[in-house]
Amino acid sequence: MNNNNALNLSVLTAMHPCEFEEWRERGENDRHILTSAVAQLLHVPAGWMVNGEYRGEFGGFFPVQLRYTPPGEAFSLCVCSPGDVSGEWLIVLISADGDCVREVLRLTPFDPQRISGLIAAAAQACLLEHSAAGMAEYLAEGEYA
Amino acid sequence: MNNNNALNLSVLTAMHPCEFEEWRERGENDRHILTSAVAQLLHVPAGWMVNGEYRGEFGGFFPVQLRYTPPGEAFSLCVCSPGDVSGEWLIVLISADGDCVREVLRLTPFDPQRISGLIAAAAQACLLEHSAAGMAEYLAEGEYA
Repeated sequence: MNNNNALNLSVLTAMHPCEFEEWRERGENDRHILTSAVAQLLHVPAGWMVNGEYRGEFGGFFPVQLRYTPPGEAFSLCVCSPGDVSGEWLIVLISADGDCVREVLRLTPFDPQRISGLIAAAAQACLLEHSAAGMAEYLAEGEYA
Repeated sequence: MNNNNALNLSVLTAMHPCEFEEWRERGENDRHILTSAVAQLLHVPAGWMVNGEYRGEFGGFFPVQLRYTPPGEAFSLCVCSPGDVSGEWLIVLISADGDCVREVLRLTPFDPQRISGLIAAAAQACLLEHSAAGMAEYLAEGEYA
């Protein structure tokens, strides 16, 4: 629990990709602490679900992966931390049927305000009709910001 | 089926990341044809299992993802195609418990001989005692080649 308190924004922002992997390698408990620390800094829109990866259920590629899913579950926004596979934070939109997958934001260092802004823009845009591909294009263009 | 025959090595080698995504977007059947075409060009060591992703069961990040797993299932080698998330082929080792994840090869264009060589080296090294991290390090160094 001490560890969790120590993982504030400035620590997360300064962490190198290999440090994220070190947290994962210390086991599920430490990985969960890291995932929770990231989740605490991101805003969840009303009615949305958020799920963090515990083991490999979202593929296991990223030390932290949080999936934000709107009501209706047409798609998820996957917030993926740096690690061995990617040196940067990735936000990837995946449609419910898995046919449409788009990277909508890639950034370094961790910027929870920018990521929360993107999720909020998706929540706002969900009120209109969008295909998953249309939503991905809208978010990738970043004009909501 | 016609499509499948057309997806030979020279076609796969010339395909751009966005073309892999186009195959996925045409639906599960076309994605399966693409996955099978890749699998046909890779050699599976005796006793190993190979599983291709149909929808999102391996995270859904890559248009083609094949997981090669040795007897005992201590780890998997995930062969991931280019697409929106990665512009190159990635081979990632994931330990069974998900604690150790290492990119062991990144290459472009598709080179099935080199990928099969890496899987064969892993099969050979499996006969000795290796931790997943030790196996990843050995494969990443590429000295088996």
